[in-house]
Parts: sequence; C-alpha cells; structure tokens
Amino acid sequence: MKKGKGMQGPLSGITILDMSRVLAGPFCTMVLSELGARVIKAEIPPAGDDSRQFGPFVEGKSAYFMSLNRGKESICIDLKEPGERKLFEKLLAGSDVLVENFRPGTLAKLGYDWESLHAAYPRLVYAALSGFGHTGPKSDMPAYDLVIQAMGGIMSITGYPGNPPTRVGSSMGDITAGLFTSTGICAALRHREISGQGMMIDVSMLDCQVAILENAIARYAAEGISPGPLGARHPSITPFDVYATGDGYMVICAGNQNLFAKLCRTLGRDELIKDKRFANNDLRTSNQAALKQEMESTLRSQGNAHWLDLLGQKGIPCGPINNLEGVLNDPQVNARNMLVEALDPTAGKVRMAGNPIKMSCFEDPPERRPAPDLDQSRQDILDLLRKKA
Amino acid sequence: MKKGKGMQGPLSGITILDMSRVLAGPFCTMVLSELGARVIKAEIPPAGDDSRQFGPFVEGKSAYFMSLNRGKESICIDLKEPGERKLFEKLLAGSDVLVENFRPGTLAKLGYDWESLHAAYPRLVYAALSGFGHTGPKSDMPAYDLVIQAMGGIMSITGYPGNPPTRVGSSMGDITAGLFTSTGICAALRHREISGQGMMIDVSMLDCQVAILENAIARYAAEGISPGPLGARHPSITPFDVYATGDGYMVICAGNQNLFAKLCRTLGRDELIKDKRFANNDLRTSNQAALKQEMESTLRSQGNAHWLDLLGQKGIPCGPINNLEGVLNDPQVNARNMLVEALDPTAGKVRMAGNPIKMSCFEDPPERRPAPDLDQSRQDILDLLRKKA
Repeated sequence: MKKGKGMQGPLSGITILDMSRVLAGPFCTMVLSELGARVIKAEIPPAGDDSRQFGPFVEGKSAYFMSLNRGKESICIDLKEPGERKLFEKLLAGSDVLVENFRPGTLAKLGYDWESLHAAYPRLVYAALSGFGHTGPKSDMPAYDLVIQAMGGIMSITGYPGNPPTRVGSSMGDITAGLFTSTGICAALRHREISGQGMMIDVSMLDCQVAILENAIARYAAEGISPGPLGARHPSITPFDVYATGDGYMVICAGNQNLFAKLCRTLGRDELIKDKRFANNDLRTSNQAALKQEMESTLRSQGNAHWLDLLGQKGIPCGPINNLEGVLNDPQVNARNMLVEALDPTAGKVRMAGNPIKMSCFEDPPERRPAPDLDQSRQDILDLLRKKA
Repeated sequence: MKKGKGMQGPLSGITILDMSRVLAGPFCTMVLSELGARVIKAEIPPAGDDSRQFGPFVEGKSAYFMSLNRGKESICIDLKEPGERKLFEKLLAGSDVLVENFRPGTLAKLGYDWESLHAAYPRLVYAALSGFGHTGPKSDMPAYDLVIQAMGGIMSITGYPGNPPTRVGSSMGDITAGLFTSTGICAALRHREISGQGMMIDVSMLDCQVAILENAIARYAAEGISPGPLGARHPSITPFDVYATGDGYMVICAGNQNLFAKLCRTLGRDELIKDKRFANNDLRTSNQAALKQEMESTLRSQGNAHWLDLLGQKGIPCGPINNLEGVLNDPQVNARNMLVEALDPTAGKVRMAGNPIKMSCFEDPPERRPAPDLDQSRQDILDLLRKKA
C-alpha cells in the first residue's frame, strides 16, 4: 500500500476526526478505517492517547495501541490554545465525522457542544461514546469496562455458580459500544446523503450492555427471575456444554433428538438413547449433571483430537477450546486472512486481527499501514488543509 | 405508532428481506429496524424461525423470539415451490438488502448465488452470516454460539484459573457477528448511494471472535504466550477487580497512584499507601493477592451499599454487580429508555431492551410494534407488491 493512502472500501472518501482514547472509540474508528475511512487521530499533548503507555511493549511501543490504531494519522491538538482551536475548527470543517469518548460535558465546556457544532458544520456527524451516556442521573460517573460489565448484568450470568463474579475476558463493555457506534455512524452517513444533515449519536457503554443480554432479559421479563451463571452450559438445551476428555476439555452441542441419538451411537453408548432420564430435551436438561457424568465417563477414555475427529466426521457440532495459540494457528482463521501484519518502523512486523467484514467488491489485503507515532502526521495534515483552502 | 409503520430513523426507506433465523441474523436486522429500516422476515414453512419454539414462553409465545423480532413483518416462503420463488424474486427486486444465516451454499443451491443475485439486482446488498464464513476449509462445519466461543479464544481468557472453561453468559459469538454485519450493511448502503452498486458481505462468527480479542491478541503477538483466564481482575492494573464486602461483591477500579491513595484513605487504611508491596502499580499487580486480602479485610466490615456510596462520593470508579433485576431497575438504564415495551395481541405487554444508538434528530419512543406471527404480514406485503407493479 502506498504511504498516506488508506484502505479502499465503502467508506472511502470519508474523513473521521477522532478524539477518542483507549478502547471503545479507537475500536469503533478502527472498524471504520478498515471500511475505507480516513481517520485523523487528534491527541491531547503532551502524552496523547493513554493506551500508548499500555503493555505489552515491542521495542518500547505498545502492541495494544499499535493494533487498535493501525492506519490512522496522528496530530496533537491542545484545545485550550487559541491557535490550536483554529486548527481544530479547520479539521472539523474538512471532516465528515467527529468521534470522542470523553466524560460527557468535556467537549461542551471547551465550546464544542452539539448545538454549536451543528450550527457551524451542519453536515458533521458527531458520535459521543461514554460510560453512561450524555443524559440521566449517572451521566457523570467514571466508567471502566469492569464497572460497566458489573453494572450491565453480563457478570451476573457469566461464570460457575458459587464462584466469585467473573468478568468476560475481553473488554465487552468497550467493544460492543464501539460496534453499536460504528453502525450508528454508517447509518448517519447514509441519512446525510439523503437529507444533507448530520446528527449527534450518543452511545453509552451501559446501554449497550443492556442491549446484548438477549435471552437473560427475555427470561427476566417473562418470569421475573434473575438468571444466574451456568458455567458453560445452555439453560434449556442439553447436551450443550463443556465436557472433560482424556486430555482436556471440548464443547459438544447436540440438543435435538436426532443429534443426541447420533452422539450416543458415536460414543458407543446406545443405551443412553433409551435411558428414561434422557428421553427428550427437557428431561436431559433436568438431568444434565447425570448425563454429563455418563458422557464424560466415555469421553475420558480418549483425548480431544480423537473425539473432535470422530464427532466432526459424523456432523455433530463440537469444537476445541482454543487458547490464543490455537486460534491464531487455526487453518480457517488463516484462510480468512484474520491475522494481518503492519510493518512498524521501530517495532518491526506487528501481527493483529484482520477485518471480519469481507466484501465482494473490495480487496482484503494481508498488510496494514502501521499506527502513527504521536503527532507524526501533523505536516501532512497541515499541507492538505492548505491545499484545500 | 401506526400499524404497518416502522421506526423513523436514518435507514427509513430501506427495505430488508431477512431470511435469517435464531440470533446472529435477527439481532443484526433488529438493530437495523431500530434505525428505521423495514424488515420483511421471510420464513420457511411450516414452522418458520426455530426460535419461535425457544423458551421462556408468555401465553405460548416465545419471549426470546418476540424481543428479537419486534417491529418486523413475516411472510412464509418455500423456495422449492416455483410460485413462491417468483414471489421471492419480486421481493428481492423491491428490497435494498438481503440477509441470511444459512450454512454456506444453501442459498446458492437454490439458484440464488451472489453472481446471479448481483446480475439480476445490481443494487442489492447481500449479507451472508455464518459460523465459519463462505470460504476456507471449515466453511461447511455446523456452528453454534458455544462452538464459536470455544474455537474463537474468548473462553480461554474467561473464568477463574483452575476451573473448567467458562462460556460468556450472553451469546457473544452471535451478537458480535450481528453487530459487525449491521455496520457492514450500513457502510455498503452508503457505498451504493455513491456507486449505484450493491455488494456481498460475508461475515463469519469465528472471524468476529478473533476481531474482539483485543489485548489478548496483542499479548500473544508480542510475547508468544497464550494468556489464561484471570477471574475478574485486570492483567496489569491493580486494584482493578471484584472484591468481597460484608454482604456480597462489588468492583473497584483504582489503578493510578492518585486513585489508589484516595481509595486507601477512604477505607481508613492510610498505611497501605506507604506499604512497600503496593508502592506502584507494577508492585501492586505482582502482589495483587496480598492487596486484595488487605482491602477485603476492611471491605467485609460493611455491606455493598455503604461502600458504593462512600467510594462513589470520592469519585473512585466502582460499581455493584447487578443481576437482571438490578440492571432493569437501574435509574440510569430507565432514564435512557433502555427498556421498551411492545403490546402483543396474545402475550400482552412484553418488555425488551431498547436501542442504545441515541440520535439527536430521531425520537426514541418507549413502545415498539410487536413481533409478527408466522406469515402474518402476507396480505399486506402482497398488496404492496401489487401496488408497486
């Protein structure tokens, strides 16, 4: 790829002025960058995005920062300096989207509230991402992913009963908010093509957690009972769980009558098909612990590889529980170009997750441009502004 | 809201022909419906979407189905019947987007491969969602959320060390795929406004899991070591974990020096600030178990309410670990209209999660139209097609 040239995609031609830091906002703008948008990362001096200091490091550079900010441009802007404010306003005039994830009110205090922005730049789409949103009694509260996961309910349904509460190992509070925001921004851009008007999008991490509770919320709404954690099993389909084998664990999902019978035969346990305790899915779910014990007594006789191969051949949905090494070496993951590389001038080749949105009319290249150093793109950006003026 | 009239939003005027079932696809089209798209759910007779049979039930109707399909229209279409194929093709001609989550190849076998679709309907956006994607050696494998969570790595970093593998309690395999697809569809619609051409979007649930591994993938790429589960704590920031109080658990995130000192003072444990074991974040992380013990010895003296109030007043990021009842009664969640209602003619008032994408130029009404019964909208849809012809 040529230097200074972004990915080609459905958002080619769109410029995003990105004041967001750490994860939720940068994840959102990374997704948009993968779809072809130009992302100008406006960072606050002297240190810029906090996540530049987050480990692990490669040759002194944050691998975390590099993966989330590949292909973006960086310029330092101090919104308290009049000269810099002018520059910021020029950038706004040349941008299609402004993204930020400050505490609500931060940008407004600097004079950039939505009403003023909309009056000055009527076509600008403004996406504000925050822990609790720009309205409501908790709007001002500080938020981290762990706080949002805790308050949003997902921790109450994750983990094993009797254990302390368990956090989802990936920052789902940030990531789902980033994804709802990327959807909202693209929809707002489509609306702008038709109406000529931008809009403000206000996304709260807590709201997004409520939006992903799916069957837990349906259960509570229907039955008035708060569901608890179930380890790895399905609340109403059995067998659908993690099972111990001779050398580890695997998952098996064989909920319907047909698949259950096939599973029993494949395990050489035909008698389980006619076992009264397991005669239908409801009974299997009521007696799930007993069924698990029966299954594991056979599964423990061989290792994962044996069972994955055998069950896979019979078309019984199952899978290994991959650690990162397993995931990144999976032939399917590699065939789908889900590991891409950027060549960083200091850190060398950096591997990172690719773009899961595969499009028929755009390439999915195996390389990305690296993440920018702090303020690295200032001159290019100033030159471009001068040319436009 | 008037019958037959969808939500107003940035996608108003867009029609989605939705052949998807269960969760990933219906979640995606629900998000688009909340943004104003009209969603016509084309269901396969005789039973339609499998999730119509998924509990819990209210007056015989699935609460799960009703929440995911609110505001959509339903028509039964048997693609093996010539007459129905003609109807399907008329619907395609009148639609902007086709969404499906069949096993790859299913629609192509029926004559509706991408090349044929694109030739016949050049402006159509076709989104195919599947477990493993339309390419690669595992493309044909059957997938459920549990299989995808297991193979995609998130289970290897979720849960407590030494426990059996833990599934994220909400179906993140389906939901993240739904969200990446909704982003891709909106971006493709923007591209179509400019180019006049539709495109195919091929989204794999497994790819999406790779795309959300964030700091785990950065760690593996940088250090070559697969990270394991950490319960609820942060790998490199301390204190940042779940802590036991007198009557339960709460989360506290006080990673930087300033917040840590404030926390110690608030707990009346000033001596911890000068304790050599906890002198900086790295030391606190190395000695996290000892620090947790010290903190909990104080936290256990009072209940959650006491500590949440006290720490909250001091601006120390913290929060309760809400179960569903707690989430749905949170004043912030309610102030943000994150619980909406649909009036189902059989089941009565059904409560469900609202739309987390709040937009300045569109209303966020507290009611939704109910989900359709199977084939309920046939006559309306046929009438509309006749009018158009």
